[in-house]
Amino acid sequence: DGETNGGPAILSPVSGFKTERVLRDSARDKTVFVHGKMDEQEAVIILEKTPIRQDTLEEMLKTSTVKLEMKNDIYSTYQLQAPPHLNEIKTTVICPATEKHVKKYLHQETFLIEESGDDYSAITLPYISSQSFSVQWVYNILEKKAEADRIVFEDPDPNVGFVLLPDFKWNQKQLDDLYLIAIVHRRGIKSLRDLTSDDLPLLRNIQKKGLEAVQKHYSIPPSKLRVYLHYQPSYYHLHVHITSLDYEAPGCGVERAHLLSDVIQNLQADSRYYRSRTITFPLRADDALLLKFREAGKL
Amino acid sequence: DGETNGGPAILSPVSGFKTERVLRDSARDKTVFVHGKMDEQEAVIILEKTPIRQDTLEEMLKTSTVKLEMKNDIYSTYQLQAPPHLNEIKTTVICPATEKHVKKYLHQETFLIEESGDDYSAITLPYISSQSFSVQWVYNILEKKAEADRIVFEDPDPNVGFVLLPDFKWNQKQLDDLYLIAIVHRRGIKSLRDLTSDDLPLLRNIQKKGLEAVQKHYSIPPSKLRVYLHYQPSYYHLHVHITSLDYEAPGCGVERAHLLSDVIQNLQADSRYYRSRTITFPLRADDALLLKFREAGKL
Repeated sequence: DGETNGGPAILSPVSGFKTERVLRDSARDKTVFVHGKMDEQEAVIILEKTPIRQDTLEEMLKTSTVKLEMKNDIYSTYQLQAPPHLNEIKTTVICPATEKHVKKYLHQETFLIEESGDDYSAITLPYISSQSFSVQWVYNILEKKAEADRIVFEDPDPNVGFVLLPDFKWNQKQLDDLYLIAIVHRRGIKSLRDLTSDDLPLLRNIQKKGLEAVQKHYSIPPSKLRVYLHYQPSYYHLHVHITSLDYEAPGCGVERAHLLSDVIQNLQADSRYYRSRTITFPLRADDALLLKFREAGKL
Repeated sequence: DGETNGGPAILSPVSGFKTERVLRDSARDKTVFVHGKMDEQEAVIILEKTPIRQDTLEEMLKTSTVKLEMKNDIYSTYQLQAPPHLNEIKTTVICPATEKHVKKYLHQETFLIEESGDDYSAITLPYISSQSFSVQWVYNILEKKAEADRIVFEDPDPNVGFVLLPDFKWNQKQLDDLYLIAIVHRRGIKSLRDLTSDDLPLLRNIQKKGLEAVQKHYSIPPSKLRVYLHYQPSYYHLHVHITSLDYEAPGCGVERAHLLSDVIQNLQADSRYYRSRTITFPLRADDALLLKFREAGKL
Protein backbone atom coordinates (compact mmCIF):
# COMPACT_ATOMS: atom_id res chain seq x y z
CA ASP A 1 0.00 0.00 0.00
CA GLY A 2 2.08 2.93 -1.20
CA GLU A 3 5.84 3.24 -1.35
CA THR A 4 7.96 4.10 1.65
CA ASN A 5 10.30 7.05 1.38
CA GLY A 6 12.58 6.06 4.21
CA GLY A 7 11.10 8.67 6.54
CA PRO A 8 8.66 8.31 9.38
CA ALA A 9 5.74 8.82 7.00
CA ILE A 10 5.06 6.88 3.82
CA LEU A 11 4.80 8.41 0.39
CA SER A 12 1.15 8.95 -0.14
CA PRO A 13 -0.71 6.10 -1.83
CA VAL A 14 -2.94 8.93 -3.02
CA SER A 15 -0.03 10.60 -4.84
CA GLY A 16 -1.01 8.78 -8.01
CA PHE A 17 -4.67 9.71 -7.66
CA LYS A 18 -6.18 11.09 -10.85
CA THR A 19 -9.03 13.48 -10.21
CA GLU A 20 -12.14 13.02 -12.32
CA ARG A 21 -14.47 15.41 -10.57
CA VAL A 22 -15.21 17.05 -7.28
CA LEU A 23 -18.37 15.46 -5.93
CA ARG A 24 -18.93 17.87 -3.07
CA ASP A 25 -17.11 20.78 -1.54
CA SER A 26 -17.98 22.37 1.77
CA ALA A 27 -16.28 25.68 2.43
CA ARG A 28 -17.77 25.77 5.90
CA ASP A 29 -16.55 22.31 6.88
CA LYS A 30 -13.27 22.56 4.93
CA THR A 31 -14.06 19.24 3.33
CA VAL A 32 -13.92 18.00 -0.22
CA PHE A 33 -15.13 14.74 -1.78
CA VAL A 34 -13.35 13.75 -4.97
CA HIS A 35 -14.02 10.98 -7.46
CA GLY A 36 -11.10 9.66 -9.47
CA LYS A 37 -8.82 6.74 -10.26
CA MET A 38 -6.12 5.13 -8.16
CA ASP A 39 -4.02 2.33 -9.72
CA GLU A 40 -6.62 1.96 -12.49
CA GLN A 41 -9.39 1.48 -9.93
CA GLU A 42 -12.34 3.73 -9.20
CA ALA A 43 -11.78 5.61 -5.97
CA VAL A 44 -13.35 8.27 -3.81
CA ILE A 45 -11.09 10.42 -1.64
CA ILE A 46 -12.46 12.54 1.18
CA LEU A 47 -10.20 15.28 2.50
CA GLU A 48 -11.07 17.14 5.65
CA LYS A 49 -8.96 19.69 7.44
CA THR A 50 -8.67 18.81 11.11
CA PRO A 51 -9.91 20.99 13.98
CA ILE A 52 -7.26 23.29 15.44
CA ARG A 53 -5.65 21.55 18.40
CA GLN A 54 -5.40 23.51 21.60
CA ASP A 55 -2.52 21.41 22.91
CA THR A 56 -0.23 22.35 20.02
CA LEU A 57 -1.51 25.90 19.52
CA GLU A 58 1.46 27.74 21.05
CA GLU A 59 3.95 25.51 19.28
CA MET A 60 2.16 26.15 16.01
CA LEU A 61 2.13 29.93 16.47
CA LYS A 62 5.84 29.84 17.35
CA THR A 63 6.95 27.77 14.41
CA SER A 64 4.78 29.10 11.59
CA THR A 65 5.50 31.77 9.04
CA VAL A 66 2.92 34.33 8.00
CA LYS A 67 2.13 36.64 5.11
CA LEU A 68 0.32 39.88 5.82
CA GLU A 69 -2.95 40.16 3.94
CA MET A 70 -4.65 43.24 5.34
CA LYS A 71 -4.17 45.75 8.12
CA ASN A 72 -6.83 48.22 9.29
CA ASP A 73 -6.62 49.92 12.68
CA ILE A 74 -6.50 47.23 15.37
CA TYR A 75 -7.42 44.48 12.88
CA SER A 76 -4.97 42.58 10.71
CA THR A 77 -5.21 39.35 8.77
CA TYR A 78 -2.50 36.94 7.69
CA GLN A 79 -1.99 33.72 5.79
CA LEU A 80 -0.26 31.44 8.21
CA GLN A 81 1.84 28.49 7.05
CA ALA A 82 2.24 25.90 9.77
CA PRO A 83 4.60 22.91 9.97
CA PRO A 84 2.78 20.02 8.25
CA HIS A 85 2.70 17.75 11.30
CA LEU A 86 0.77 20.42 13.22
CA ASN A 87 -1.76 20.94 10.45
CA GLU A 88 -2.84 17.56 9.17
CA ILE A 89 -5.61 16.73 6.76
CA LYS A 90 -7.79 13.75 7.50
CA THR A 91 -7.94 11.61 4.39
CA THR A 92 -10.38 8.82 3.74
CA VAL A 93 -9.95 6.57 0.73
CA ILE A 94 -12.63 4.28 -0.63
CA CYS A 95 -11.08 1.99 -3.23
CA PRO A 96 -12.35 0.28 -5.22
CA ALA A 97 -15.41 2.50 -5.07
CA THR A 98 -18.72 1.54 -6.62
CA GLU A 99 -21.18 3.79 -8.39
CA LYS A 100 -23.13 3.77 -5.12
CA HIS A 101 -20.23 5.37 -3.24
CA VAL A 102 -19.83 8.01 -5.90
CA LYS A 103 -23.53 8.79 -5.74
CA LYS A 104 -23.51 8.85 -1.97
CA TYR A 105 -21.00 11.67 -1.88
CA LEU A 106 -22.22 13.60 -4.91
CA HIS A 107 -23.87 16.80 -3.80
CA GLN A 108 -27.55 16.53 -4.51
CA GLU A 109 -30.61 18.49 -3.71
CA THR A 110 -32.62 16.96 -0.89
CA PHE A 111 -36.35 16.62 -0.42
CA LEU A 112 -38.39 15.86 2.67
CA ILE A 113 -40.40 12.65 2.55
CA GLU A 114 -43.33 12.01 4.86
CA GLU A 115 -43.44 8.25 5.23
CA SER A 116 -46.52 6.79 6.89
CA GLY A 117 -46.48 3.31 8.40
CA ASP A 118 -48.25 2.09 5.28
CA ASP A 119 -45.73 3.83 3.02
CA TYR A 120 -42.99 2.00 4.89
CA SER A 121 -44.61 -1.39 4.23
CA ALA A 122 -45.57 -0.62 0.65
CA ILE A 123 -42.57 1.39 -0.56
CA THR A 124 -39.57 1.52 1.76
CA LEU A 125 -39.39 -2.04 3.09
CA PRO A 126 -39.67 -3.70 -0.35
CA TYR A 127 -36.99 -1.30 -1.58
CA ILE A 128 -34.60 -2.07 1.29
CA SER A 129 -35.17 -5.81 0.86
CA SER A 130 -34.63 -5.71 -2.89
CA GLN A 131 -31.33 -3.85 -2.56
CA SER A 132 -29.77 -6.25 -0.05
CA PHE A 133 -27.32 -3.52 1.07
CA SER A 134 -24.24 -5.21 2.40
CA VAL A 135 -23.52 -4.78 6.09
CA GLN A 136 -20.56 -7.17 5.96
CA TRP A 137 -18.28 -4.44 7.26
CA VAL A 138 -20.54 -4.15 10.32
CA TYR A 139 -20.35 -7.89 10.93
CA ASN A 140 -16.55 -7.64 10.57
CA ILE A 141 -16.52 -5.18 13.44
CA LEU A 142 -18.89 -7.22 15.62
CA GLU A 143 -16.82 -10.38 14.99
CA LYS A 144 -13.48 -8.57 15.56
CA LYS A 145 -12.36 -9.28 12.04
CA ALA A 146 -11.75 -5.57 11.54
CA GLU A 147 -11.17 -2.47 13.63
CA ALA A 148 -10.88 -4.58 16.82
CA ASP A 149 -8.20 -2.21 18.12
CA ARG A 150 -10.56 0.75 17.74
CA ILE A 151 -13.23 -0.62 20.06
CA VAL A 152 -13.74 1.69 23.04
CA PHE A 153 -16.20 -0.50 24.88
CA GLU A 154 -18.14 -3.70 24.35
CA ASP A 155 -21.05 -5.37 26.02
CA PRO A 156 -20.92 -8.84 24.43
CA ASP A 157 -24.48 -9.85 25.37
CA PRO A 158 -26.11 -11.17 22.17
CA ASN A 159 -29.47 -9.66 23.03
CA VAL A 160 -28.77 -6.26 24.61
CA GLY A 161 -25.04 -5.92 23.91
CA PHE A 162 -23.23 -3.56 21.57
CA VAL A 163 -19.85 -2.39 20.41
CA LEU A 164 -18.83 1.24 20.89
CA LEU A 165 -16.20 2.69 18.59
CA PRO A 166 -15.18 5.99 16.98
CA ASP A 167 -16.96 6.95 13.81
CA PHE A 168 -14.80 7.18 10.68
CA LYS A 169 -15.40 10.92 10.64
CA TRP A 170 -13.60 11.46 13.95
CA ASN A 171 -9.78 11.48 14.08
CA GLN A 172 -9.82 11.10 17.92
CA LYS A 173 -7.22 13.85 18.40
CA GLN A 174 -9.54 16.33 20.10
CA LEU A 175 -12.76 15.85 22.01
CA ASP A 176 -14.47 18.87 20.40
CA ASP A 177 -15.84 16.79 17.57
CA LEU A 178 -16.18 13.50 19.41
CA TYR A 179 -18.23 11.10 17.29
CA LEU A 180 -18.84 7.55 18.43
CA ILE A 181 -21.13 4.82 17.14
CA ALA A 182 -22.77 2.10 19.21
CA ILE A 183 -23.51 -0.90 16.98
CA VAL A 184 -25.86 -3.49 18.44
CA HIS A 185 -24.84 -7.15 18.44
CA ARG A 186 -28.35 -8.30 17.66
CA ARG A 187 -28.93 -8.71 13.94
CA GLY A 188 -32.10 -8.07 12.03
CA ILE A 189 -33.14 -4.71 13.51
CA LYS A 190 -32.97 -2.64 10.38
CA SER A 191 -33.86 0.77 11.78
CA LEU A 192 -36.04 2.86 14.08
CA ARG A 193 -39.09 1.48 12.20
CA ASP A 194 -38.46 -2.03 13.56
CA LEU A 195 -38.28 -0.97 17.21
CA THR A 196 -41.01 -1.94 19.69
CA SER A 197 -41.17 -1.91 23.46
CA ASP A 198 -39.49 -5.34 23.33
CA ASP A 199 -36.32 -3.48 22.41
CA LEU A 200 -36.40 -1.16 25.42
CA PRO A 201 -33.83 -3.25 27.39
CA LEU A 202 -31.42 -2.95 24.45
CA LEU A 203 -31.94 0.80 24.08
CA ARG A 204 -31.68 1.46 27.82
CA ASN A 205 -28.53 -0.63 27.96
CA ILE A 206 -26.90 1.51 25.27
CA GLN A 207 -28.01 4.66 27.03
CA LYS A 208 -26.63 3.51 30.38
CA LYS A 209 -23.48 1.58 29.53
CA GLY A 210 -22.62 3.57 26.41
CA LEU A 211 -22.68 6.85 28.28
CA GLU A 212 -20.79 5.35 31.23
CA ALA A 213 -18.10 4.21 28.83
CA VAL A 214 -17.82 7.69 27.29
CA GLN A 215 -17.59 9.22 30.76
CA LYS A 216 -14.89 6.75 31.72
CA HIS A 217 -12.80 6.96 28.55
CA TYR A 218 -13.18 10.62 27.66
CA SER A 219 -14.35 12.22 30.94
CA ILE A 220 -17.38 13.67 29.15
CA PRO A 221 -20.62 13.59 31.14
CA PRO A 222 -23.99 12.66 29.57
CA SER A 223 -25.12 16.31 29.71
CA LYS A 224 -22.47 17.13 27.08
CA LEU A 225 -23.54 14.43 24.63
CA ARG A 226 -26.13 14.18 21.85
CA VAL A 227 -27.28 10.56 21.56
CA TYR A 228 -29.49 9.75 18.58
CA LEU A 229 -30.57 7.46 15.76
CA HIS A 230 -30.88 8.37 12.11
CA TYR A 231 -33.93 7.71 10.02
CA GLN A 232 -33.30 6.76 7.27
CA PRO A 233 -30.03 5.29 8.53
CA SER A 234 -27.11 5.01 6.13
CA TYR A 235 -26.96 1.24 6.77
CA TYR A 236 -29.72 -1.08 7.91
CA HIS A 237 -28.23 -2.56 11.06
CA LEU A 238 -29.28 -0.74 14.21
CA HIS A 239 -26.73 1.75 15.51
CA VAL A 240 -26.76 4.81 17.73
CA HIS A 241 -24.78 8.02 17.19
CA ILE A 242 -23.04 9.75 20.09
CA THR A 243 -21.64 13.20 19.36
CA SER A 244 -20.32 16.06 21.43
CA LEU A 245 -23.12 18.52 22.15
CA ASP A 246 -20.83 21.42 21.24
CA TYR A 247 -20.20 19.89 17.82
CA GLU A 248 -22.83 20.47 15.14
CA ALA A 249 -22.28 17.07 13.63
CA PRO A 250 -23.54 16.48 10.09
CA GLY A 251 -26.86 14.64 10.29
CA CYS A 252 -27.85 15.92 13.73
CA GLY A 253 -30.65 18.06 12.28
CA VAL A 254 -34.24 17.57 13.45
CA GLU A 255 -35.21 16.29 10.00
CA ARG A 256 -33.09 13.15 10.34
CA ALA A 257 -32.08 12.61 13.97
CA HIS A 258 -34.14 11.07 16.78
CA LEU A 259 -32.88 11.44 20.34
CA LEU A 260 -32.46 8.06 22.01
CA SER A 261 -34.18 9.42 25.14
CA ASP A 262 -37.22 10.39 23.03
CA VAL A 263 -37.25 7.00 21.30
CA ILE A 264 -37.25 5.25 24.68
CA GLN A 265 -40.07 7.42 26.01
CA ASN A 266 -42.16 7.04 22.88
CA LEU A 267 -41.84 3.24 22.95
CA GLN A 268 -42.69 3.18 26.65
CA ALA A 269 -45.92 5.02 25.91
CA ASP A 270 -46.77 3.17 22.71
CA SER A 271 -45.00 0.00 21.62
CA ARG A 272 -46.07 0.60 18.03
CA TYR A 273 -45.03 4.28 17.98
CA TYR A 274 -42.40 3.84 15.25
CA ARG A 275 -44.47 1.29 13.35
CA SER A 276 -47.48 3.53 12.98
CA ARG A 277 -46.21 7.13 12.93
CA THR A 278 -45.58 9.16 9.84
CA ILE A 279 -41.84 9.83 9.97
CA THR A 280 -40.28 12.73 8.10
CA PHE A 281 -36.81 12.39 6.60
CA PRO A 282 -34.72 13.93 3.84
CA LEU A 283 -33.75 12.07 0.71
CA ARG A 284 -31.35 13.15 -1.98
CA ALA A 285 -32.68 13.73 -5.47
CA ASP A 286 -30.74 10.76 -6.85
CA ASP A 287 -31.78 8.33 -4.13
CA ALA A 288 -33.56 5.36 -5.66
CA LEU A 289 -35.97 5.39 -2.71
CA LEU A 290 -37.03 8.92 -3.64
CA LEU A 291 -37.93 7.68 -7.10
CA LYS A 292 -40.08 4.97 -5.49
CA PHE A 293 -41.95 7.60 -3.49
CA ARG A 294 -42.31 9.74 -6.59
CA GLU A 295 -43.64 6.80 -8.62
CA ALA A 296 -46.17 6.16 -5.87
CA GLY A 297 -47.34 9.76 -6.19
CA LYS A 298 -46.11 10.62 -2.69
CA LEU A 299 -43.90 13.56 -3.62
CA ASP B 1 4.82 44.37 12.65
CA GLY B 2 6.90 41.27 13.21
CA GLU B 3 10.43 40.53 12.13
CA THR B 4 11.34 39.54 8.60
CA ASN B 5 13.42 36.43 8.07
CA GLY B 6 14.72 37.33 4.64
CA GLY B 7 12.45 34.80 2.93
CA PRO B 8 9.24 35.28 1.04
CA ALA B 9 7.25 34.97 4.28
CA ILE B 10 7.87 36.91 7.45
CA LEU B 11 8.48 35.40 10.86
CA SER B 12 5.12 35.37 12.47
CA PRO B 13 4.26 38.44 14.55
CA VAL B 14 2.08 35.96 16.43
CA SER B 15 5.12 33.85 17.34
CA GLY B 16 5.45 35.75 20.59
CA PHE B 17 1.75 35.41 21.36
CA LYS B 18 1.10 34.21 24.90
CA THR B 19 -2.13 32.26 25.17
CA GLU B 20 -4.36 33.12 28.10
CA ARG B 21 -7.42 31.12 27.17
CA VAL B 22 -9.33 29.70 24.26
CA LEU B 23 -12.52 31.74 23.91
CA ARG B 24 -14.25 29.54 21.40
CA ASP B 25 -13.36 26.46 19.40
CA SER B 26 -15.41 25.11 16.53
CA ALA B 27 -14.43 21.61 15.48
CA ARG B 28 -16.88 21.71 12.63
CA ASP B 29 -15.66 25.02 11.20
CA LYS B 30 -12.02 24.31 12.10
CA THR B 31 -11.82 27.66 13.81
CA VAL B 32 -10.43 28.76 17.15
CA PHE B 33 -10.65 32.12 18.98
CA VAL B 34 -7.87 32.75 21.47
CA HIS B 35 -7.35 35.51 24.01
CA GLY B 36 -3.79 36.35 25.02
CA LYS B 37 -0.99 38.89 25.04
CA MET B 38 1.17 40.15 22.19
CA ASP B 39 3.98 42.59 23.00
CA GLU B 40 2.42 43.27 26.41
CA GLN B 41 -0.90 44.18 24.81
CA GLU B 42 -4.23 42.39 25.06
CA ALA B 43 -4.94 40.51 21.83
CA VAL B 44 -7.46 38.16 20.27
CA ILE B 45 -6.30 35.79 17.56
CA ILE B 46 -8.72 33.97 15.30
CA LEU B 47 -7.38 31.00 13.38
CA GLU B 48 -9.43 29.36 10.68
CA LYS B 49 -8.31 26.57 8.40
CA THR B 50 -8.99 27.46 4.79
CA PRO B 51 -11.37 25.58 2.50
CA ILE B 52 -9.66 22.94 0.37
CA ARG B 53 -8.76 24.46 -2.97
CA GLN B 54 -9.81 22.53 -6.05
CA ASP B 55 -7.13 24.19 -8.20
CA THR B 56 -4.25 22.85 -6.10
CA LEU B 57 -5.80 19.54 -5.16
CA GLU B 58 -3.74 17.29 -7.46
CA GLU B 59 -0.51 19.09 -6.56
CA MET B 60 -1.32 18.66 -2.90
CA LEU B 61 -2.04 14.93 -3.22
CA LYS B 62 1.21 14.48 -5.18
CA THR B 63 3.44 16.29 -2.75
CA SER B 64 2.05 15.22 0.62
CA THR B 65 3.08 12.42 2.91
CA VAL B 66 0.58 10.24 4.74
CA LYS B 67 0.36 7.99 7.78
CA LEU B 68 -2.05 5.09 7.71
CA GLU B 69 -4.59 5.26 10.50
CA MET B 70 -7.07 2.48 9.79
CA LYS B 71 -7.89 -0.03 7.07
CA ASN B 72 -11.10 -2.07 6.81
CA ASP B 73 -12.20 -3.68 3.56
CA ILE B 74 -12.38 -0.98 0.89
CA TYR B 75 -12.10 1.85 3.44
CA SER B 76 -8.86 3.35 4.71
CA THR B 77 -8.05 6.54 6.54
CA TYR B 78 -4.80 8.49 6.69
CA GLN B 79 -3.28 11.55 8.28
CA LEU B 80 -2.05 13.60 5.38
CA GLN B 81 0.71 16.17 5.81
CA ALA B 82 0.67 18.74 3.04
CA PRO B 83 3.27 21.36 2.08
CA PRO B 84 2.49 24.44 4.21
CA HIS B 85 1.86 26.76 1.25
CA LEU B 86 -0.93 24.45 0.06
CA ASN B 87 -2.57 24.28 3.45
CA GLU B 88 -2.74 27.75 4.92
CA ILE B 89 -4.54 28.95 8.00
CA LYS B 90 -6.38 32.26 7.89
CA THR B 91 -5.27 34.30 10.87
CA THR B 92 -6.97 37.40 12.19
CA VAL B 93 -5.34 39.46 14.90
CA ILE B 94 -7.14 42.06 16.99
CA CYS B 95 -4.58 44.05 18.96
CA PRO B 96 -4.97 45.87 21.21
CA ALA B 97 -8.23 44.09 22.04
CA THR B 98 -10.78 45.45 24.51
CA GLU B 99 -12.86 43.52 27.02
CA LYS B 100 -15.73 43.84 24.54
CA HIS B 101 -13.82 41.89 21.89
CA VAL B 102 -13.03 39.18 24.37
CA LYS B 103 -16.65 38.85 25.46
CA LYS B 104 -17.89 38.87 21.89
CA TYR B 105 -15.84 35.80 21.03
CA LEU B 106 -16.18 33.97 24.33
CA HIS B 107 -17.94 30.69 23.85
CA GLN B 108 -20.36 29.60 26.48
CA GLU B 109 -20.46 25.93 27.16
CA THR B 110 -23.88 24.31 26.77
CA PHE B 111 -25.39 21.48 28.76
CA LEU B 112 -28.32 19.20 28.00
CA ILE B 113 -31.20 19.44 30.43
CA GLU B 114 -33.78 16.68 30.78
CA GLU B 115 -36.91 18.45 31.93
CA SER B 116 -39.77 16.23 33.12
CA GLY B 117 -43.31 17.54 33.28
CA ASP B 118 -42.81 17.98 37.02
CA ASP B 119 -39.53 19.83 36.49
CA TYR B 120 -41.37 22.19 34.20
CA SER B 121 -43.97 22.98 36.88
CA ALA B 122 -41.47 23.18 39.71
CA ILE B 123 -38.49 24.88 38.06
CA THR B 124 -39.05 26.24 34.57
CA LEU B 125 -42.53 27.75 34.82
CA PRO B 126 -41.80 29.68 38.06
CA TYR B 127 -38.60 30.94 36.45
CA ILE B 128 -40.34 32.10 33.27
CA SER B 129 -43.09 33.78 35.30
CA SER B 130 -40.66 35.53 37.64
CA GLN B 131 -38.66 36.94 34.77
CA SER B 132 -41.68 38.42 32.98
CA PHE B 133 -39.68 38.40 29.74
CA SER B 134 -41.08 41.17 27.59
CA VAL B 135 -42.73 40.11 24.36
CA GLN B 136 -43.85 43.67 23.61
CA TRP B 137 -41.86 43.57 20.37
CA VAL B 138 -43.96 40.55 19.31
CA TYR B 139 -47.19 42.39 20.12
CA ASN B 140 -45.89 45.35 18.11
CA ILE B 141 -45.58 43.08 15.08
CA LEU B 142 -49.00 41.50 15.60
CA GLU B 143 -50.58 44.97 15.98
CA LYS B 144 -48.67 46.39 12.96
CA LYS B 145 -46.91 48.92 15.16
CA ALA B 146 -43.58 47.61 13.88
CA GLU B 147 -42.22 45.68 10.91
CA ALA B 148 -45.58 45.87 9.13
CA ASP B 149 -43.81 46.25 5.78
CA ARG B 150 -41.92 42.99 6.36
CA ILE B 151 -45.04 40.82 6.68
CA VAL B 152 -45.12 38.14 3.98
CA PHE B 153 -48.54 36.74 4.86
CA GLU B 154 -51.18 37.11 7.54
CA ASP B 155 -54.19 35.13 8.65
CA PRO B 156 -55.90 37.63 11.00
CA ASP B 157 -58.11 35.06 12.75
CA PRO B 158 -57.65 35.67 16.52
CA ASN B 159 -57.84 31.96 17.32
CA VAL B 160 -55.98 30.14 14.54
CA GLY B 161 -54.38 33.10 12.74
CA PHE B 162 -50.72 34.10 12.49
CA VAL B 163 -48.29 36.51 10.92
CA LEU B 164 -45.49 35.22 8.66
CA LEU B 165 -42.34 37.31 8.28
CA PRO B 166 -38.60 36.93 7.63
CA ASP B 167 -36.40 36.19 10.60
CA PHE B 168 -33.82 38.87 11.44
CA LYS B 169 -31.05 36.42 10.57
CA TRP B 170 -32.14 36.25 6.93
CA ASN B 171 -31.09 39.09 4.64
CA GLN B 172 -33.64 37.97 2.02
CA LYS B 173 -31.01 38.31 -0.72
CA GLN B 174 -30.90 34.60 -1.60
CA LEU B 175 -33.27 31.72 -1.01
CA ASP B 176 -30.46 29.32 0.05
CA ASP B 177 -30.75 30.40 3.66
CA LEU B 178 -34.46 31.28 3.73
CA TYR B 179 -35.60 31.76 7.31
CA LEU B 180 -39.18 32.76 8.15
CA ILE B 181 -41.10 32.92 11.41
CA ALA B 182 -44.84 32.35 11.88
CA ILE B 183 -46.03 34.15 15.02
CA VAL B 184 -49.48 33.17 16.29
CA HIS B 185 -52.06 35.88 17.02
CA ARG B 186 -53.35 34.06 20.08
CA ARG B 187 -51.64 35.20 23.27
CA GLY B 188 -50.77 33.10 26.28
CA ILE B 189 -49.30 30.02 24.60
CA LYS B 190 -45.81 30.23 26.00
CA SER B 191 -44.24 27.25 24.28
CA LEU B 192 -44.52 23.63 23.16
CA ARG B 193 -45.20 22.71 26.82
CA ASP B 194 -48.55 24.52 26.75
CA LEU B 195 -49.88 22.78 23.65
CA THR B 196 -52.75 20.28 23.83
CA SER B 197 -55.02 18.76 21.20
CA ASP B 198 -57.16 21.91 21.54
CA ASP B 199 -54.42 23.70 19.63
CA LEU B 200 -54.43 21.33 16.67
CA PRO B 201 -56.56 23.66 14.48
CA LEU B 202 -54.01 26.44 15.05
CA LEU B 203 -51.03 24.20 14.27
CA ARG B 204 -52.66 22.69 11.19
CA ASN B 205 -53.56 26.17 9.97
CA ILE B 206 -49.92 27.27 10.16
CA GLN B 207 -48.81 24.11 8.41
CA LYS B 208 -51.31 24.57 5.59
CA LYS B 209 -51.51 28.33 5.03
CA GLY B 210 -47.94 29.09 6.05
CA LEU B 211 -46.53 26.62 3.56
CA GLU B 212 -48.93 27.79 0.86
CA ALA B 213 -47.70 31.36 1.41
CA VAL B 214 -44.05 30.29 1.10
CA GLN B 215 -44.84 28.40 -2.08
CA LYS B 216 -46.63 31.44 -3.48
CA HIS B 217 -44.07 34.08 -2.48
CA TYR B 218 -40.83 32.18 -2.94
CA SER B 219 -41.81 29.25 -5.20
CA ILE B 220 -40.43 26.80 -2.65
CA PRO B 221 -42.50 23.63 -2.15
CA PRO B 222 -43.15 22.13 1.31
CA SER B 223 -40.75 19.26 0.57
CA LYS B 224 -37.88 21.77 0.59
CA LEU B 225 -38.76 23.29 3.97
CA ARG B 226 -37.97 22.43 7.58
CA VAL B 227 -40.87 23.57 9.79
CA TYR B 228 -40.27 23.39 13.54
CA LEU B 229 -40.62 24.81 17.03
CA HIS B 230 -37.84 25.43 19.50
CA TYR B 231 -37.84 24.21 23.07
CA GLN B 232 -36.78 26.21 24.99
CA PRO B 233 -37.88 29.02 22.69
CA SER B 234 -35.96 32.28 22.78
CA TYR B 235 -39.21 34.15 23.64
CA TYR B 236 -42.33 32.82 25.30
CA HIS B 237 -44.99 33.57 22.68
CA LEU B 238 -45.72 30.64 20.37
CA HIS B 239 -43.93 30.83 17.02
CA VAL B 240 -42.89 28.39 14.32
CA HIS B 241 -39.61 28.43 12.37
CA ILE B 242 -39.54 27.78 8.63
CA THR B 243 -36.10 27.29 7.07
CA SER B 244 -34.79 26.03 3.78
CA LEU B 245 -34.04 22.31 4.02
CA ASP B 246 -30.68 22.83 2.28
CA TYR B 247 -29.66 25.37 4.91
CA GLU B 248 -28.33 24.04 8.20
CA ALA B 249 -29.86 26.83 10.19
CA PRO B 250 -28.53 27.47 13.69
CA GLY B 251 -30.93 25.85 16.16
CA CYS B 252 -32.24 23.16 13.81
CA GLY B 253 -30.45 20.40 15.71
CA VAL B 254 -32.39 17.51 17.19
CA GLU B 255 -31.57 18.71 20.72
CA ARG B 256 -33.66 21.86 20.35
CA ALA B 257 -35.99 21.59 17.34
CA HIS B 258 -39.34 19.79 17.11
CA LEU B 259 -40.87 19.26 13.66
CA LEU B 260 -44.35 20.76 13.44
CA SER B 261 -45.58 17.57 11.73
CA ASP B 262 -44.36 15.50 14.69
CA VAL B 263 -45.93 17.89 17.18
CA ILE B 264 -49.27 17.58 15.40
CA GLN B 265 -49.09 13.78 15.33
CA ASN B 266 -48.04 13.51 18.96
CA LEU B 267 -50.92 15.74 20.10
CA GLN B 268 -53.36 13.75 17.97
CA ALA B 269 -52.30 10.58 19.74
CA ASP B 270 -52.01 12.08 23.23
CA SER B 271 -53.37 15.50 24.12
CA ARG B 272 -51.03 15.68 27.12
CA TYR B 273 -47.93 14.57 25.20
CA TYR B 274 -46.02 17.82 25.73
CA ARG B 275 -47.33 18.29 29.26
CA SER B 276 -46.11 14.94 30.50
CA ARG B 277 -43.02 14.05 28.48
CA THR B 278 -39.48 14.61 29.56
CA ILE B 279 -38.12 17.08 27.01
CA THR B 280 -34.40 17.45 26.36
CA PHE B 281 -32.90 20.85 25.50
CA PRO B 282 -29.55 22.66 25.67
CA LEU B 283 -28.83 25.61 27.94
CA ARG B 284 -25.78 27.85 28.00
CA ALA B 285 -23.67 27.80 31.15
CA ASP B 286 -24.55 31.42 31.90
CA ASP B 287 -28.31 30.88 31.51
CA ALA B 288 -30.14 31.66 34.74
CA LEU B 289 -32.48 28.71 34.10
CA LEU B 290 -29.49 26.38 34.14
CA LEU B 291 -28.63 27.61 37.62
CA LYS B 292 -32.18 26.80 38.73
CA PHE B 293 -31.83 23.23 37.47
CA ARG B 294 -28.45 22.98 39.14
CA GLU B 295 -29.82 24.29 42.44
CA ALA B 296 -32.56 21.67 42.22
CA GLY B 297 -29.90 18.98 41.86
CA LYS B 298 -31.01 18.15 38.32
CA LEU B 299 -27.65 18.61 36.61
